[in-house]
Amino acid sequence: MVALQRETVDSPLIPPLNFSMSAPGIYRSGYPNSMNHAFMKKLRLKTILYLCPEEYSESNTAWCRANNVQIVQCGILPNKEPFQFIPEDVVADALRVLLDCRNHPVLMHCNSGKHRSGVVIGTLRKMQGWSLTSIFDEYRRFAGSKVRILDQQFIELFRVESVAYDKEHAPRWLR
Amino acid sequence: MVALQRETVDSPLIPPLNFSMSAPGIYRSGYPNSMNHAFMKKLRLKTILYLCPEEYSESNTAWCRANNVQIVQCGILPNKEPFQFIPEDVVADALRVLLDCRNHPVLMHCNSGKHRSGVVIGTLRKMQGWSLTSIFDEYRRFAGSKVRILDQQFIELFRVESVAYDKEHAPRWLR
Repeated sequence: MVALQRETVDSPLIPPLNFSMSAPGIYRSGYPNSMNHAFMKKLRLKTILYLCPEEYSESNTAWCRANNVQIVQCGILPNKEPFQFIPEDVVADALRVLLDCRNHPVLMHCNSGKHRSGVVIGTLRKMQGWSLTSIFDEYRRFAGSKVRILDQQFIELFRVESVAYDKEHAPRWLR
Repeated sequence: MVALQRETVDSPLIPPLNFSMSAPGIYRSGYPNSMNHAFMKKLRLKTILYLCPEEYSESNTAWCRANNVQIVQCGILPNKEPFQFIPEDVVADALRVLLDCRNHPVLMHCNSGKHRSGVVIGTLRKMQGWSLTSIFDEYRRFAGSKVRILDQQFIELFRVESVAYDKEHAPRWLR
């Protein structure tokens, strides 16, 4: 029998909102705050991919600096009817970051971990060749009652050929 | 620019119901069928951990044999009020299988990928030191409207010290 270290019993680890592992080397979540830093340390991250256009929080920026984690920002405004649409080229940029093993492990996040993150993971699944039914089911698991038709439409229409990722450094599971 | 292989465009991959990656080396899902085999091949599984007491399906058994995947069965009857309770010792057995890197990558599944799988992953999170709020949030993400209080109670009361896992072969992320 093995006793767990006391630390794990005393102060629980708190993953960021809507945290999940999407594939080897790739995590997704909502916006982390300082309560999540102890948890994030366990992930031994190399990169944070930040999907919002706003400046990154001071607390996370300081934590990344202290832990030698690079911050990559691909600022996306979420889909909003009737006139605001997620830009395809920025999503393609985000995918290029995710699909470069030199950035792994990477934590990608937006604000709630539902819509922008859901769209990027949805397009990643499309590149992996998943059926649309499975892609939308996963999207819904995180979006819950906040499913956005425009997000699903974006995923359906997204042209995977537009992603100029570096094949030499792509993860084995994509090939 | 890089073109994806035609195969991924022609025949979509279909992950099993409620499929997700829980941690490096560990996947969870509902009961796979033959439509999921092409997808499962991409996971390069070493082990399937089957959580139901019924005999395993012929089609999956044959697929495992052909793909050199070992099948480990930890048969659990789900929680059902008022008199049927998940046995703690069998959940501990399942955790020992999950926490042995020599079995990785492992796909653990029950029938729907909601309750028994949710309970085992919930207790795994407890061993990882997650807060109960985060554990229940993840449980709910898969159970949706079918959340079972007895499952959550089981997770809350589960004694992590009862899991006699092999520390030498435990994944690095647990330590």
